[in-house]
Amino acid sequence: MYTPTHFQETDAAAIEAMIEAYPLAALVAQAPDGLVANHLPLLREGDALVGHIALANDLHRILDDGAEVLAIFRGEDSYISPNWYPTKAETHKAVPTWNYQVVHVHGRIRFQHDRKTKLALVGRLTKRHEEAENGTAGWRMADAPKDYLEAMLDNIVAFRIEIVRVQAKSKLNQNRADADFNAVTEEMTGRGKAGLAARMQGIKKTR
Amino acid sequence: MYTPTHFQETDAAAIEAMIEAYPLAALVAQAPDGLVANHLPLLREGDALVGHIALANDLHRILDDGAEVLAIFRGEDSYISPNWYPTKAETHKAVPTWNYQVVHVHGRIRFQHDRKTKLALVGRLTKRHEEAENGTAGWRMADAPKDYLEAMLDNIVAFRIEIVRVQAKSKLNQNRADADFNAVTEEMTGRGKAGLAARMQGIKKTR
Repeated sequence: MYTPTHFQETDAAAIEAMIEAYPLAALVAQAPDGLVANHLPLLREGDALVGHIALANDLHRILDDGAEVLAIFRGEDSYISPNWYPTKAETHKAVPTWNYQVVHVHGRIRFQHDRKTKLALVGRLTKRHEEAENGTAGWRMADAPKDYLEAMLDNIVAFRIEIVRVQAKSKLNQNRADADFNAVTEEMTGRGKAGLAARMQGIKKTR
Repeated sequence: MYTPTHFQETDAAAIEAMIEAYPLAALVAQAPDGLVANHLPLLREGDALVGHIALANDLHRILDDGAEVLAIFRGEDSYISPNWYPTKAETHKAVPTWNYQVVHVHGRIRFQHDRKTKLALVGRLTKRHEEAENGTAGWRMADAPKDYLEAMLDNIVAFRIEIVRVQAKSKLNQNRADADFNAVTEEMTGRGKAGLAARMQGIKKTR
């Protein structure tokens, strides 16, 4: 990914927070018949990303063990108009741009078919998302009948992506004058892009 | 992309609307040293997608003319808890899932370096986004000094992706009972996912 120095995201906590806040990754691979992508909620666990696919998804059959994959995490984004920069009125030297924050995780994927690994994985995924969405009233796997759950587990394949390289980009106007930066942050709030406004407020300015 | 029949999106108007509503694509390619992705606003023009990258972005140097690329467009997404299905109380046969809508455009990319093509392209992109965001008060390229604009044009490379294949997936609970579908749509509205709620309201049920 092309990333000018002032948009490079090197803050490990910010990268971790992005994966946490926007867990649905685009998982990309080079398959024998072309590029393929699947959209899957992933969990970061130390030096790995974990998740699962449907057994009916050919990915686990067409990729070699240890195949290179790219997992893309992305937050909210927005077109940015030069009209939103107060400094534009002075020089008129501004062009449209786009704000967004992405994390690219490059790694090597290995699929896991044993029921114990699959059960533990969906348990961790469920706990993480139920706690976030429903707190203590969250759904638990034990709420479903045992034979139903076992049939569901038979229909998935777990995987673990060993992380080789992480590249992140925060393109959030942090290179603009304070007046422009603050005005765009307000525009994002006003235009219903609360997630993007929050990311802008958290970014370190690179001027 | 793995897509069960009931989640296949075949409605050309819905696919067009997704590209229009979520124009920032993840443009993926296989580069000599691995998978590479860049996030770029694209415009659909007939049987092509058009856009531009920075001249400093190596993509136009490392990809062959006509190289295979995948442009991924994605809207809002959400974890879906079994607790949000009213029918769950009857059978308890439900597991967590994720709702999202994606369009994958597979094509062949060709870069364009001539200033006339680049000027016309940024003109069309600007018009489209300024009209959408700022209406008749939109910024125009003529608002910027001519020599400044020319210098900006020198720093970009335009491209055209000839579309080979489009695959789209709308995973929006359209396979669930009405009670479940309606309840989740309300949850999405209540949880600030208006874009996803709107997509659900527009989907044809596949039951």
